[in-house]
Amino acid sequence: MSQAVVGVIMGSQSDWETMAHSCRVLDELEIPYEKKVVSAHRTPDYMFEYAASAKARGLRVIIAGAGGAAHLPGMVASKTDLPVVGVPVKTSTLQGLESLLSIVQMPGGVPVATMAIGRAGATNAALYAARILAVDDAALADRLAARRARVEADVLAGGEPGEV
Amino acid sequence: MSQAVVGVIMGSQSDWETMAHSCRVLDELEIPYEKKVVSAHRTPDYMFEYAASAKARGLRVIIAGAGGAAHLPGMVASKTDLPVVGVPVKTSTLQGLESLLSIVQMPGGVPVATMAIGRAGATNAALYAARILAVDDAALADRLAARRARVEADVLAGGEPGEV
Amino acid sequence: MSQAVVGVIMGSQSDWETMAHSCRVLDELEIPYEKKVVSAHRTPDYMFEYAASAKARGLRVIIAGAGGAAHLPGMVASKTDLPVVGVPVKTSTLQGLESLLSIVQMPGGVPVATMAIGRAGATNAALYAARILAVDDAALADRLAARRARVEADVLAGGEPGEV
Amino acid sequence: MSQAVVGVIMGSQSDWETMAHSCRVLDELEIPYEKKVVSAHRTPDYMFEYAASAKARGLRVIIAGAGGAAHLPGMVASKTDLPVVGVPVKTSTLQGLESLLSIVQMPGGVPVATMAIGRAGATNAALYAARILAVDDAALADRLAARRARVEADVLAGGEPGEV
Amino acid sequence: MSQAVVGVIMGSQSDWETMAHSCRVLDELEIPYEKKVVSAHRTPDYMFEYAASAKARGLRVIIAGAGGAAHLPGMVASKTDLPVVGVPVKTSTLQGLESLLSIVQMPGGVPVATMAIGRAGATNAALYAARILAVDDAALADRLAARRARVEADVLAGGEPGEV
Amino acid sequence: MSQAVVGVIMGSQSDWETMAHSCRVLDELEIPYEKKVVSAHRTPDYMFEYAASAKARGLRVIIAGAGGAAHLPGMVASKTDLPVVGVPVKTSTLQGLESLLSIVQMPGGVPVATMAIGRAGATNAALYAARILAVDDAALADRLAARRARVEADVLAGGEPGEV
Amino acid sequence: MSQAVVGVIMGSQSDWETMAHSCRVLDELEIPYEKKVVSAHRTPDYMFEYAASAKARGLRVIIAGAGGAAHLPGMVASKTDLPVVGVPVKTSTLQGLESLLSIVQMPGGVPVATMAIGRAGATNAALYAARILAVDDAALADRLAARRARVEADVLAGGEPGEV
Amino acid sequence: MSQAVVGVIMGSQSDWETMAHSCRVLDELEIPYEKKVVSAHRTPDYMFEYAASAKARGLRVIIAGAGGAAHLPGMVASKTDLPVVGVPVKTSTLQGLESLLSIVQMPGGVPVATMAIGRAGATNAALYAARILAVDDAALADRLAARRARVEADVLAGGEPGEV
Repeated sequence: MSQAVVGVIMGSQSDWETMAHSCRVLDELEIPYEKKVVSAHRTPDYMFEYAASAKARGLRVIIAGAGGAAHLPGMVASKTDLPVVGVPVKTSTLQGLESLLSIVQMPGGVPVATMAIGRAGATNAALYAARILAVDDAALADRLAARRARVEADVLAGGEPGEV
Repeated sequence: MSQAVVGVIMGSQSDWETMAHSCRVLDELEIPYEKKVVSAHRTPDYMFEYAASAKARGLRVIIAGAGGAAHLPGMVASKTDLPVVGVPVKTSTLQGLESLLSIVQMPGGVPVATMAIGRAGATNAALYAARILAVDDAALADRLAARRARVEADVLAGGEPGEV
Repeated sequence: MSQAVVGVIMGSQSDWETMAHSCRVLDELEIPYEKKVVSAHRTPDYMFEYAASAKARGLRVIIAGAGGAAHLPGMVASKTDLPVVGVPVKTSTLQGLESLLSIVQMPGGVPVATMAIGRAGATNAALYAARILAVDDAALADRLAARRARVEADVLAGGEPGEV
Repeated sequence: MSQAVVGVIMGSQSDWETMAHSCRVLDELEIPYEKKVVSAHRTPDYMFEYAASAKARGLRVIIAGAGGAAHLPGMVASKTDLPVVGVPVKTSTLQGLESLLSIVQMPGGVPVATMAIGRAGATNAALYAARILAVDDAALADRLAARRARVEADVLAGGEPGEV
Repeated sequence: MSQAVVGVIMGSQSDWETMAHSCRVLDELEIPYEKKVVSAHRTPDYMFEYAASAKARGLRVIIAGAGGAAHLPGMVASKTDLPVVGVPVKTSTLQGLESLLSIVQMPGGVPVATMAIGRAGATNAALYAARILAVDDAALADRLAARRARVEADVLAGGEPGEV
Repeated sequence: MSQAVVGVIMGSQSDWETMAHSCRVLDELEIPYEKKVVSAHRTPDYMFEYAASAKARGLRVIIAGAGGAAHLPGMVASKTDLPVVGVPVKTSTLQGLESLLSIVQMPGGVPVATMAIGRAGATNAALYAARILAVDDAALADRLAARRARVEADVLAGGEPGEV
Repeated sequence: MSQAVVGVIMGSQSDWETMAHSCRVLDELEIPYEKKVVSAHRTPDYMFEYAASAKARGLRVIIAGAGGAAHLPGMVASKTDLPVVGVPVKTSTLQGLESLLSIVQMPGGVPVATMAIGRAGATNAALYAARILAVDDAALADRLAARRARVEADVLAGGEPGEV
Repeated sequence: MSQAVVGVIMGSQSDWETMAHSCRVLDELEIPYEKKVVSAHRTPDYMFEYAASAKARGLRVIIAGAGGAAHLPGMVASKTDLPVVGVPVKTSTLQGLESLLSIVQMPGGVPVATMAIGRAGATNAALYAARILAVDDAALADRLAARRARVEADVLAGGEPGEV
C-alpha cells in the first residue's frame, strides 16, 4: 500500500467493530490509510506524539473514534492543524450520547468534525475524509461522484418497499 | 474581495448573530467567502441550486448554520460532494440540542461535519474550513499555526485566574 | 386498486418494518395508497419531484417515515401544500428521540404532523390520514366511527387483566 | 364572522400568548374559527362535551395547545374523529419537552398531529389546519400557495445576512 | 373477597405484567381490591364513569398504570377526589421516561402521586395505598410495620455480597 | 393553631419560595400543619428523629421538598410508615429534572408520592395531603369538592382567551 | 486479611455484579477491604451506624454503589468525614442516568466523588481509593505507577486493531 | 503562603467565577493551594507538564474545573497518580450536562472524582480535597468536623422557614 494519507485511530481495541466501517469505505475509494489503537488516557504521550508528527509523516486527515468521555478526537485536534474527524462510539449505558457530547462540544479554537454515533458515523467519517481530499484530487472527486450516482440509482431501482 | 472559496449560509436572518463568528474568523485568516440566507424549507429550490452549483462557482467548503429541525446542512450535503460543515444554532426551547441531533445523526452515505452548538461552533466551523483548505495551502497552514501559537502564548501569559 | 389518495414513503427499505403498520390500517379502511422508498439524502431530486407532483397525481395526504436526521417529512412538506404526516422511526442509538425532534421541531411556515415513535406512530399516521380524508367523505367517516366503536367494545368486553 | 370551521382551544388563559399565533395565521388565511379555554383537568366534562359536539357544530379541525402533562389534545382526539392538531406549550421547568412527549407519544388508535414546541408550533398548527381544509377547497389552496410564494420571494430578496 | 377499597386500573392488557406487582403486594397485606383495564383513549366514557363512581362504590384509593402519553392517572384524578397513585409503565422507545413525565407534570390543582417507572413503581404503588389506608387502620399499620421489620432483618442477615 | 396533622419540611431555607405554595393551600383548606427546615445532608440525625417521631406526635402526612440530589423525601419515607409526598424543587442547572428523578426512582419497598417540579408540585402536594386526609374526614372532603367546583366554574366563566 | 482500610458497600445484593469490579482491583493492589450490603432505604439505622463508626474501625475510604434514587453514597457522606466514592449502578429503565444524577448532584457541603456508570465506574472507584491511600503510602504509589506503566505498554504492544 | 498541597486549575479565565468557590473553602480550612488557568486544548503541552510534575512539586490533590467538552480533568488524571477532583462548569447551551458527562464517563483505568455542576460542585471539590488530606492529618480532620458541627447547628437554630 502506498503512503497513508488518512490515519484511522481509536481509543481501544473494542472500537474496531465500529471503526472497521471507516476502513471499508477508504478501501473502496482507494485511499491509503493506516490504523492504530491510540488511547488518550492509557497512552497520552504516544497520542501527543502521534498527533504532532502526523503531518510530517504525510497524513492529511485523521479519523478518531472513541466512546464514553471520548477525549481522543479533541486532544488530537489540539496537537495538530490537520482536519480531525471524530466518531462517537456507542456505549452500553448512555448509548453513545455522552460520546457525542464529549466530542462535539469543543470550545472555540479547536474544531473536531463530529459524525453520527456508531456505524453510520464511521462510514461517514471516511466519506468526509474523501470529500476533504477530493478538494484537490479530481480523480478521487470522480470516484466520489460515481459512488453517489450508484447509490442513487440503487434506491431508484429498488421497487416497492416490502416486495422481497 | 477575491473569488470566494467558502460559502457561509444560514437558515434565516436571525442566525446571523451566531454565524457572524464564522465570518469574523474567515476575515482574520484572509479566506475569501460569500454569505447568504438559504432556507431549506422556505427556498428549497434555491438551496438545491446553490449546493449543486457551488463547486463550479469555485467554492471549496460550505459552512451551514441552522436551528430546530435544521435540515439545511444535511440537504446541502446531499446535493454536492464538497465538504459541508454544520453549525447547530441555539434555540429558545431545547437550547439547540435538537439542532445538534438533526445535523449530526446523518445516515451512512452523506456526511456533515458537525460543530458545537452556537457561537463556539460557528467559530470552529471557520477554523475547520481553514484546516481543510490548508491541506493544500502552505501559506494558510502557516497562518493557522501562528494563530494557534498566539492563543497558547496568551493563555500562558495570563497570570493567575481572578487577578484582574 | 383505484387511484391512490395517500402516498406512503420512507427513507429506506429498512423502515418498511415500521411503515407496514400504516399500510395495514389503510387497507383495513379501504383507502387506496401507493408506497415507495424515497430518500431525502440519497435521492434528493426524486424526492422533490415526488413531492412537487403529488397533488397533480391525485394524492391528498402524504405519510413519510424516517429515522435519525429524518429530513424526509420536512423537506417533502417544503415542496407541496398537501398535509404531510411524519413518522419518527426508532433507531438503535438514541431510540428514535432524534428522529422525533428532527421531524417535529419545524420552523414556523412549514408544518409536519408528527406522530409517536415507531409502530404506534405508523398506525396512527394512517388513522390521521383517514381523519383528514373523512372531513369530506361521509362513508369513510362512518368506517372510522365503526372502527372506534369496535375498539371500545373490545376493551369493555376484555374482562379482568391477567385472566388469560 | 361566518360559521367557525376550526376550534382553537387551550388548557389555560396563560397559553394564549402562544396560541395567539394560531389565530393570527387563521385570520390571515380567512379561515373562520372560534377560540376557548378548555381544561382537561379543571373542566373535564366540558372538554368531553366540546369534543363530542364539535363535528355537529360545524368544526372540521381542532387545534389544541397545552403545557406540562398536556392531556388536552389526546383526550379531545379520543372523543371525536375530527383531525386534532396539538401544540406543546413551553414550560418554565422542562422547556416544553414534557409537553411535547405527552402530546406526541399517543398509543396506536388515537392520533394527534403534533407540532413544534411554542410559537413556531402554534403558527404551524394553523397552517396545517389550512392544508387539511385546502384538500377540498381550491380557493384556500390558492391562498396557501400564494403565501408560500411570498415567503420564498421575501427570503430571496433579503440580501446578505447582517446587512441591516 | 370483601368489598374492594383499592381499584387497580391500567391502560391496556399489556400493562398487566407490570401492574401484577401492585396486586401481589395488596394480596400480601390483605387489602381487598378490584382490577380492570380502563383506557383513557379507547374507553374515555367508561373511564370517567369509573372515576366518578369510585368513591360511592367504596373505593378509597385508585392505582392507575399507563405507558407512553399515559393520560389515565391524571384524567382519573380530574374526575374524583380520591387519592390517585400513578405508575409509569416502561415503553420500548423512551424506556418510560415519557410515561413518567406525562404522569408527574400535572398542573397545579389536580395531583397524582407518581411512583418509579415499571415494576418497582407498581410495588410501591400498593405500599403507598397501604400507607394511606393505615392512617386510620391500626391493624394495617401493624402489618406494614411488621413487613418493614422483616425486610430490614432480611438485609441484615444477608451476609457478605457475592457469597452465594 | 390546633395540633398539626401535616408536616411540611424542606431541605433548605431557599426552598421556602417553592414550598410556601403548599402552606398556602393547607391554610385555605383549614388543615393544621407545621413547617421546618430539615436537611438530609446537614442534619441527618434530626431528620431521622423527625421522621421516626412524626406519627407519635400526631402527624398523618409528611410533605418534603428538596432540590438536586434531593434525598430528603426518600430518607424520611425510610424512617416512617406515614405517607410521604415529595416535591422536586427546580434547580439552576438541570431545571429540577435531577430532583425529580432522585425523588421518584425509589426502589421497591419505600414509596414516595412524587409531584411535579416546582410551584405546581408544591400546590399539588397540599391537595394530595388533603385527599389522603379526606378519606376519613367528610367535612374536608366537602371542602375539597367545593374547591374543585369553584375552579371549574371559574374556567367556564372565563370567556374567550385573550379578551382582557 | 489484615485490617480493612476500604469499605465497599452496596444498596442490594444485585449490585454485586457491578461492585465485584471494585473488589477485584483492590485485591490486585493488595489493599485490605471489607464488603457489605448496606441499604439506605431498607436498613437506614444500620447505614448511619456503619458510616458513623467507619473511621474508628480503621476505614480510610468508603466505596458505595447504588442504583435508581441511589441515596446511599450521599447519606453515608453526611455521617462521616472520610472520603466517599460513589458508583452509579446501571438500571433497566433509565440506564443509570438517574443513579448518576442522584449521586453527583449533592448540595454544597457534603461531597461524594462520583465515578462513571456501571462496571468502569466500579473499577475506577477502587483505583481512586488507591490514589487517595497512596498520598501517604509510597509502596502503594509504586504499585499504582507500575500498573499504569503495564497498561500503557500493553496498548502500545497491541498491534493494529482487528488483527486478531 | 506555605507550600501548596492542592492545585486548583481551570480551562479558562471565565471558569474563575465558579472555581473561586473552591478557593474560598480551601482558605477557610487553611489548606495551602495554587491556582492557574491550564487549558487542555489551548495549552496541551503545559497541561501535561503541569500534571506530570505535580507530585514532585508537592501537590497532593488536583482540583480541575472545565466546561463543554471538558477534557481537562481526565487528561490530567492520565498524566499523574494524584487524586484528581473534577468540577463540571455550567454552560450556556446544555447547562453543564455535557461537562458532567465528559468528566464522569471515564473509561476503566483512569478515575476522576466528579462533583456537582457549578458552584455547589466547586465548593464540594475543596471539601473533598480536605477529606482526602484529613486521612493523614488529624488537625485538618478536626477543622472539618468542627465545620460540619457548625453547619448542623446553624440549620437547627434557623427557626421556621420564611420567618425572616
